[in-house]
Amino acid sequence: MIRVAINGYGTIGKRVADAVAAQKDMKVIGVSKTRPSHEAFVAKSRGYPLYIADISKKGSFEKAGLPVAGSVDDMLKGADIVVDATPGGVGVKNRALYEKIGIKAIWQGGEDHEVAGFSFNSDCNYKDTIGRQFARVVSCNTTGLCRIINTMDKAYGVEKVRAVMVRRGGDPADIKRGPIDAIVLNPVHIPSHHGPDVQSVLPHINIVTLAMIVPVTMMHMHVVQMDLKKEPDRNHVLEIMDKHPRIGLVKKETGITSTAELKEYAMDLGRFRSDLWENGIFEESVSCLGKELYLFQAIHQEADVVVENIDCIRAMTGIEKDPAKSVAMTNKALNFIAIT
Amino acid sequence: MIRVAINGYGTIGKRVADAVAAQKDMKVIGVSKTRPSHEAFVAKSRGYPLYIADISKKGSFEKAGLPVAGSVDDMLKGADIVVDATPGGVGVKNRALYEKIGIKAIWQGGEDHEVAGFSFNSDCNYKDTIGRQFARVVSCNTTGLCRIINTMDKAYGVEKVRAVMVRRGGDPADIKRGPIDAIVLNPVHIPSHHGPDVQSVLPHINIVTLAMIVPVTMMHMHVVQMDLKKEPDRNHVLEIMDKHPRIGLVKKETGITSTAELKEYAMDLGRFRSDLWENGIFEESVSCLGKELYLFQAIHQEADVVVENIDCIRAMTGIEKDPAKSVAMTNKALNFIAIT
Amino acid sequence: MIRVAINGYGTIGKRVADAVAAQKDMKVIGVSKTRPSHEAFVAKSRGYPLYIADISKKGSFEKAGLPVAGSVDDMLKGADIVVDATPGGVGVKNRALYEKIGIKAIWQGGEDHEVAGFSFNSDCNYKDTIGRQFARVVSCNTTGLCRIINTMDKAYGVEKVRAVMVRRGGDPADIKRGPIDAIVLNPVHIPSHHGPDVQSVLPHINIVTLAMIVPVTMMHMHVVQMDLKKEPDRNHVLEIMDKHPRIGLVKKETGITSTAELKEYAMDLGRFRSDLWENGIFEESVSCLGKELYLFQAIHQEADVVVENIDCIRAMTGIEKDPAKSVAMTNKALNFIAIT
Amino acid sequence: MIRVAINGYGTIGKRVADAVAAQKDMKVIGVSKTRPSHEAFVAKSRGYPLYIADISKKGSFEKAGLPVAGSVDDMLKGADIVVDATPGGVGVKNRALYEKIGIKAIWQGGEDHEVAGFSFNSDCNYKDTIGRQFARVVSCNTTGLCRIINTMDKAYGVEKVRAVMVRRGGDPADIKRGPIDAIVLNPVHIPSHHGPDVQSVLPHINIVTLAMIVPVTMMHMHVVQMDLKKEPDRNHVLEIMDKHPRIGLVKKETGITSTAELKEYAMDLGRFRSDLWENGIFEESVSCLGKELYLFQAIHQEADVVVENIDCIRAMTGIEKDPAKSVAMTNKALNFIAIT
Repeated sequence: MIRVAINGYGTIGKRVADAVAAQKDMKVIGVSKTRPSHEAFVAKSRGYPLYIADISKKGSFEKAGLPVAGSVDDMLKGADIVVDATPGGVGVKNRALYEKIGIKAIWQGGEDHEVAGFSFNSDCNYKDTIGRQFARVVSCNTTGLCRIINTMDKAYGVEKVRAVMVRRGGDPADIKRGPIDAIVLNPVHIPSHHGPDVQSVLPHINIVTLAMIVPVTMMHMHVVQMDLKKEPDRNHVLEIMDKHPRIGLVKKETGITSTAELKEYAMDLGRFRSDLWENGIFEESVSCLGKELYLFQAIHQEADVVVENIDCIRAMTGIEKDPAKSVAMTNKALNFIAIT
Repeated sequence: MIRVAINGYGTIGKRVADAVAAQKDMKVIGVSKTRPSHEAFVAKSRGYPLYIADISKKGSFEKAGLPVAGSVDDMLKGADIVVDATPGGVGVKNRALYEKIGIKAIWQGGEDHEVAGFSFNSDCNYKDTIGRQFARVVSCNTTGLCRIINTMDKAYGVEKVRAVMVRRGGDPADIKRGPIDAIVLNPVHIPSHHGPDVQSVLPHINIVTLAMIVPVTMMHMHVVQMDLKKEPDRNHVLEIMDKHPRIGLVKKETGITSTAELKEYAMDLGRFRSDLWENGIFEESVSCLGKELYLFQAIHQEADVVVENIDCIRAMTGIEKDPAKSVAMTNKALNFIAIT
Repeated sequence: MIRVAINGYGTIGKRVADAVAAQKDMKVIGVSKTRPSHEAFVAKSRGYPLYIADISKKGSFEKAGLPVAGSVDDMLKGADIVVDATPGGVGVKNRALYEKIGIKAIWQGGEDHEVAGFSFNSDCNYKDTIGRQFARVVSCNTTGLCRIINTMDKAYGVEKVRAVMVRRGGDPADIKRGPIDAIVLNPVHIPSHHGPDVQSVLPHINIVTLAMIVPVTMMHMHVVQMDLKKEPDRNHVLEIMDKHPRIGLVKKETGITSTAELKEYAMDLGRFRSDLWENGIFEESVSCLGKELYLFQAIHQEADVVVENIDCIRAMTGIEKDPAKSVAMTNKALNFIAIT
Repeated sequence: MIRVAINGYGTIGKRVADAVAAQKDMKVIGVSKTRPSHEAFVAKSRGYPLYIADISKKGSFEKAGLPVAGSVDDMLKGADIVVDATPGGVGVKNRALYEKIGIKAIWQGGEDHEVAGFSFNSDCNYKDTIGRQFARVVSCNTTGLCRIINTMDKAYGVEKVRAVMVRRGGDPADIKRGPIDAIVLNPVHIPSHHGPDVQSVLPHINIVTLAMIVPVTMMHMHVVQMDLKKEPDRNHVLEIMDKHPRIGLVKKETGITSTAELKEYAMDLGRFRSDLWENGIFEESVSCLGKELYLFQAIHQEADVVVENIDCIRAMTGIEKDPAKSVAMTNKALNFIAIT
């Protein structure tokens, strides 16, 4: 039973905590918050011991009716591994602490590759992760790209990838971030950081990425174009996607044409938090023009990395050495019902 | 075991179906759709027999992999009561059919009061509903207003109500409706229809309402001001709200200041579909200035009427004559955990 | 010829500069920026000398092709009066400088009343402003409230005002601010700061205000309700509004029901920057119920204070002692065509 | 002096009317509306005679204070050419009328190529247009694509174009259309209609386009990637763009990274209606990777076709046979100041 600490109980942390709790081979020994918030009340209702970064703030938590189990240091001492889900740029500052304590640690994609020296995707490099002390689960966008690129690379060989990411401005409950009525180039220059980030997992892939931000809260949308080494057959491509445990085909019969309807479908299916853990590839969009492949895929920014964190825990701790088995266990524990 | 048919399996219908299925004293005998859609696949996955309005379209459903149990007429024959959740303006056209068959029917607030000649709210007129053939559950906004107005009326007497409704433009998955970047007066004239609609349930209440539409998908926000007959004590007001089974106090300690954060909280608590069935009254906003009461309340347009439909079924069929017991049963079956 | 410096050439500053330049009795002697931006290029194209806060950054401006006329101190030395349109909270820090130099200064509503000890609205207290060294033009929302409240107070006497402000999240080009999909109570508590701010201009008015923020960029919308001392006649009320130089009646015949359509109309009429300098009161909404008055008014957050700044310059410098004459001059210079 | 009638005085029609009125060699002899609206009042304020489609509605216009000059038939009789700017799908129904009267007619891109049998872009096929009775100015997106593709084709030869269009959901004053919080694939299948539409102007171009809709009102954003026949030099590419009369380079120094800031800049420069008639290519995005060219361009959906309509009038009527001279005249009349 792997004892997991979640440092940073926010958008990603709270999902990782629940996903850990749903697995048979691991458990949540604590989660951390910096200040009282609705999420702290959620942790309490779940029975997750609540630790705080700055123990001098214990009074303000207790005054709000939130019992404090101790400091983050205390939490780490009882854990086999920590999932650092603090905001981007904060995680790197925790590295020294994890080193000192000698705990295994997983960072998120908000940190640079260098924080861990190793970037993880269960589809691409699970076996290389076994036994490592530090790893970084790449960002939601990079995770979504790695899955589809690696899958096509294994089947046909990938010559070149061109991808456009149309990104959500903020998460649903993030009321501070915009834009309200603008398409923002982020960045203006080409390529965006996503291409190099894919290469931190798949170094041999030739990829150019472009990114912009739009005023939506539910999922990113990717346009993915690949020049393949061998001419693909569309039916075969769809078959490969259908069999992939982390790719879901959004069927034409559902009438779904947007991120919002796809999220509604995940919600109606009873997915916890309406989460879409897989790449949502629109079946009708999958097009083969000679050696070229085109497709649209929806990536749920809050969800797709959650299952990756679970697999990463198994790989780093070595409790499961077969990637396929870990992925299957993770999916099963979450009642990962296919979207179609 | 009351046999319930759901005519119109959309935003409200799918929620009512699941709420019926969760109760011990009623069951879903069928749901209807007019054309294949993601919701038809959801019905299939739930095991709800799928009936269709136009039986000539049976082939298009079956081609999509959706078995058809029969026509809407067939569905109604096997039911004790039908919940009509078809789009506003369509429901009234079904009235003749329900009369012919002699089935009990519940309409939604998208229809006028005249469709049933009786408008229902479990807090206000449950007992008057017992044994009726036809009733209309008032709209989400009117339901939210009735709950708080009736509650304050019983405690202090209500002299006058002034309410401003800031309404969501469309539901989350409704990708056609706007506005995108505008505040729309809907209507420009004063009062809006909500005031008279409240009076269809509470005829003695003096009320002026104003309404506008803004580009959001998650919940309406009400500004409610009341001139009370007796000077209220704020602590007493909060106590009354806290005890009400369909009012939730959003506590300051949660840090929640918006509709989006409130919905996130409902999601994190594990509410099915992240639904907020109760009025979400912001505790900090509750203000007593002499005989005046002011407050903000969030109303989840997709959810608050769902529980009212369940109570309405019990009242009309007479299986439970005590409103408090019905409300408690409904809430319990949905694991209606308090938001604070 | 009053020499006016504009400290802070942003959303408000650039509009005030152009409005000053359009008047016959004043001129722009300089504008200031803290860093190169599209607005600095606009200043250059207008021929406004560009001054910078931190003269050590001169190189970065010149490298971008933007000639620098000197420091802010240099600018102030050549001016009779400075309009401080720096971001809220920054202006107050400039007070010591203005005092030292002994220059007249106008702040905006982003600063507190205390920054100047006097809050200005041309409709309410122009004459009290004559000769002052310091004044603060109240915010867009407060300006809009003062205009209509003072007008009704003079005609009927105002017993009590209740106002709800539905505010835009950010200005059109402000791509950082949200919310994207939320109604945010700002603040949650009642009253908002707007009521006391109105009292900084009209101390005898009894007013309660509530405010929220929604994801729009074009104009705020106010719901204004007043208990009047005398029963108003609707036609008389409309006549008073029609005659007011800073109130525009949005006629039903135009079909305009929203902020967006109103801004489109201002644009189509050829208003510079599509600005709505007046309160846009929706004629159809103006309702008299006994002694109560209800109405909706649109307030263009970028524009209504611009004309107030011009009048404030005239009052403080004493070049025009009659408020009506100043208002008429300001309006005429801007080709302030009535919206209907 | 070419006499121009504008059939359909809406988003495009009102802009074309003002652009015609600004030219020395043509004039507006009338505009048409189907019902009273704010735009009808604008026509009146401009002094454009107002004609109506259904003369039986004359009374409703006059009651609103809008004098009616006659029917659309009356308007056409006095014109040399009609610009049909009625909504997409309506224009084609007017064809028979134009044929009967024997008037020259220009349709917009909302109609199919077949409406006129000839699709126009001033950059690509002005000379082929001379003397034609019927032509169609292609849509805003196709116009923007044609300009940049044709320009690069002339300089380097274009092997293949891949373009992604991120489209605005509705125009600023269009309060009915969504989405509010969704990225909508429109269409889901690949390619979108834009590629074939480019080929209606440039038949030899090999192009694949993809399109989606997002909740913004201000401008579309294009990602354009081209495989060129010769390896381009970035500085040369920028030089070509800089010299093009309908391409504007958005310079890095302006700090502009979004559609909203770009529109603000057009507004600040005093452009009428803040219109961006040119392709707004982000200089920093222009990237040359071997024979590949990548760039982002903003396309103002309400504006870029307006100048094309003016050139099309000149070509069809033959009053100016040199495309460069027509383009220069059009631009000059509009005070088409470069955005940088």
